[in-house]
Amino acid sequence: MESIAGLSRRAVATAEGMAPVLDFHFRSRYGGRRGDPAICDLTFGNPHEFPLPALVEAIRERAVPQDKDWFAYKTSEPEPQAFVAEALARELELPFAPADIALTAGAFGAIAVAFRLLLDAGDEAIFSLPPWFCYAPMLLAADAVPRQVALTPGRFDLDLAAIEAAIGPRTRLVIVNTPHNPTGRIYGREELLALGQMLDRASARLGRRIYLLSDEPYRRLRFDGRGFTSPAAVYPWTLISYSYGKVLLAPGQRLGYLAVSPLMPGPERRAIQGAVAASQIALGWCFPNAVMQRGPGPGGTEHRHDHPHGQARPAAARPERRRLRGAAARGHVLPVRPLPVRRACLHRRARRPGRVRAARPDDAGPGLFPGEPHGLAGDDRARVARVRRDRGRAPESRGPVTRSAGAIAPQ
Amino acid sequence: MESIAGLSRRAVATAEGMAPVLDFHFRSRYGGRRGDPAICDLTFGNPHEFPLPALVEAIRERAVPQDKDWFAYKTSEPEPQAFVAEALARELELPFAPADIALTAGAFGAIAVAFRLLLDAGDEAIFSLPPWFCYAPMLLAADAVPRQVALTPGRFDLDLAAIEAAIGPRTRLVIVNTPHNPTGRIYGREELLALGQMLDRASARLGRRIYLLSDEPYRRLRFDGRGFTSPAAVYPWTLISYSYGKVLLAPGQRLGYLAVSPLMPGPERRAIQGAVAASQIALGWCFPNAVMQRGPGPGGTEHRHDHPHGQARPAAARPERRRLRGAAARGHVLPVRPLPVRRACLHRRARRPGRVRAARPDDAGPGLFPGEPHGLAGDDRARVARVRRDRGRAPESRGPVTRSAGAIAPQ
Repeated sequence: MESIAGLSRRAVATAEGMAPVLDFHFRSRYGGRRGDPAICDLTFGNPHEFPLPALVEAIRERAVPQDKDWFAYKTSEPEPQAFVAEALARELELPFAPADIALTAGAFGAIAVAFRLLLDAGDEAIFSLPPWFCYAPMLLAADAVPRQVALTPGRFDLDLAAIEAAIGPRTRLVIVNTPHNPTGRIYGREELLALGQMLDRASARLGRRIYLLSDEPYRRLRFDGRGFTSPAAVYPWTLISYSYGKVLLAPGQRLGYLAVSPLMPGPERRAIQGAVAASQIALGWCFPNAVMQRGPGPGGTEHRHDHPHGQARPAAARPERRRLRGAAARGHVLPVRPLPVRRACLHRRARRPGRVRAARPDDAGPGLFPGEPHGLAGDDRARVARVRRDRGRAPESRGPVTRSAGAIAPQ
Repeated sequence: MESIAGLSRRAVATAEGMAPVLDFHFRSRYGGRRGDPAICDLTFGNPHEFPLPALVEAIRERAVPQDKDWFAYKTSEPEPQAFVAEALARELELPFAPADIALTAGAFGAIAVAFRLLLDAGDEAIFSLPPWFCYAPMLLAADAVPRQVALTPGRFDLDLAAIEAAIGPRTRLVIVNTPHNPTGRIYGREELLALGQMLDRASARLGRRIYLLSDEPYRRLRFDGRGFTSPAAVYPWTLISYSYGKVLLAPGQRLGYLAVSPLMPGPERRAIQGAVAASQIALGWCFPNAVMQRGPGPGGTEHRHDHPHGQARPAAARPERRRLRGAAARGHVLPVRPLPVRRACLHRRARRPGRVRAARPDDAGPGLFPGEPHGLAGDDRARVARVRRDRGRAPESRGPVTRSAGAIAPQ
């Protein structure tokens, strides 16, 4: 930024916190080549394939008004609330009620709302290092204090002792991101249970409740039959943030939710249910669009925006894998270890000693995310990308995906 | 709210500030009858007619992906930025550049971002009494301090002496809402010029710049050839918040912008341009949806979301006016004076003395907005509604509006 003239301190802190990502996205060599179809772009969580035809059809169908209020203001509409509550209850085996579900403009909206609901200025939130790169600037924008705690080296497990040591009198929130971005780690039930017990003890010690935000946008992107435990199932004071952007290959359509764990004690649960709409309105009416909230017809109950996931059709992944292998061969990237959700941790291989240290966001090679926004500037670890085995038999195609969602289920 | 267990103080303040509106909307007698087509609903800024076919067509067309990134994350995309800059330059006769335009999820998003860009916790913002009912809770959610200054009695002019008297060392922002909701007042150039000069003097006195937020969602809903001056033309430190929701009859589709006055001195202008995207991301990725930002085709430059306005087609307004007259005759409402943009200020007529004082939101009669959320509980003034002369000749219809946008131009 050229100047901070006129800006609030929090806007400056937010801009500075977001600068590594935005500089990379808009002003780096990558930024200049972004969108070039020759590039295997493994940076941000954008789709690598065409959206599913069912999504396109649903949007087109819902855009046809059935009454004059078709495009009127929408808050959390009863139909998608009920749909999400039921689907989530089935998936997580927890008794969600419709009122537990706040429809939001993507997971970003859910996280921003959660920060305002639970944190006052000066309150602290703990999350993992390496982190998703937006927690810190989003906390700074909310006048809250980010506290990063390193995951265990190598395995990327939660370091409970380190988290406990980081808890202080202003700690109000611990963020768990599972499957974890950028490492791909899925935390197990025992690990989460131990975290919950520790937070319970710490809350009792502090005399105020420490909440947990479980950020789960990748929850349904799991392979090899891996299970999933939401922290909402083991620690009652949990909110879940979720985005349909990943499974629908449509992060630009802003559909997600903030869900309250139904295990939360009544007073806290009802307080959050009762306050969330006001916070959403005050944050800029961060509900999904009318078209994105609608069922496929008036009175319809089917909510089509719910697929296991639409990404990574094996055939379509082939050219990417080829480019990725090519990049690795040229010394740009090096898969270091397979991870549970088949994300491969990549970093740049130095051709000469000392080269890595000199790495900058804009020469990290096309399509790879630099380490800086993950707080990993020192070892220049790059952002990770999922790599799947190619078992598909379908012909390669650059056109829209024609398989149904069911056919893209984990294999 | 049953309990404030676990909630932040600001979430509680936001919920309490929003409670009169939300209670009325969701829990009043009105809330129970909302959506009943027999009701002439003059409460919130929702459409009274079907959306324009051009909007429906545009959404349907844009939902068809032309590449795999069709629904990828969108920030402020260059095409609509350039379009809005050019259209706004023509309309307001000010040299807007594309970088002055931040595309937002409606005016709510623009206002929320402006509050974070310009205000730190504890900073004060001044706005009019009666106000649009969300300024105060939105400021509370931003940890800022709302200061209401009464408009002049009867004429609803800005009371410059009162505004000047309300300015203190923490004053950082004055909000001008023109045309003013709820009174319909359009402030004249001389009045705004005098305000700007006063703010200039006050800024010099304080040693820090007081900014102006010009909230203009009704800017294009003017009749009888009335002109319009944006504060951005007379006070360089002005941001404009705008929503396409009113002109498109589609507030649920969340399309708007925050614009920086091109008269703003370079350092401040560039600082805001440079910081706005980070604040939008941190507030929950409050950019418009991918579909709403797209031109009608790849490489297309026409941005169809720009009409003078689509509301109040004379023929379609007829049944409403009839119901309104009926309500007035039954003593529910009384138009008290015509206002510049043809909004009529309504209040409830007491059948017996003392009746007005006993008024509550949920017995204000269907379709009328109670005074409380406008800070007018004492005199029980109701929310206003625009009433137009019925000169139309088209047959009445409950189907989609078939006139082109051009045919709905002010008459």
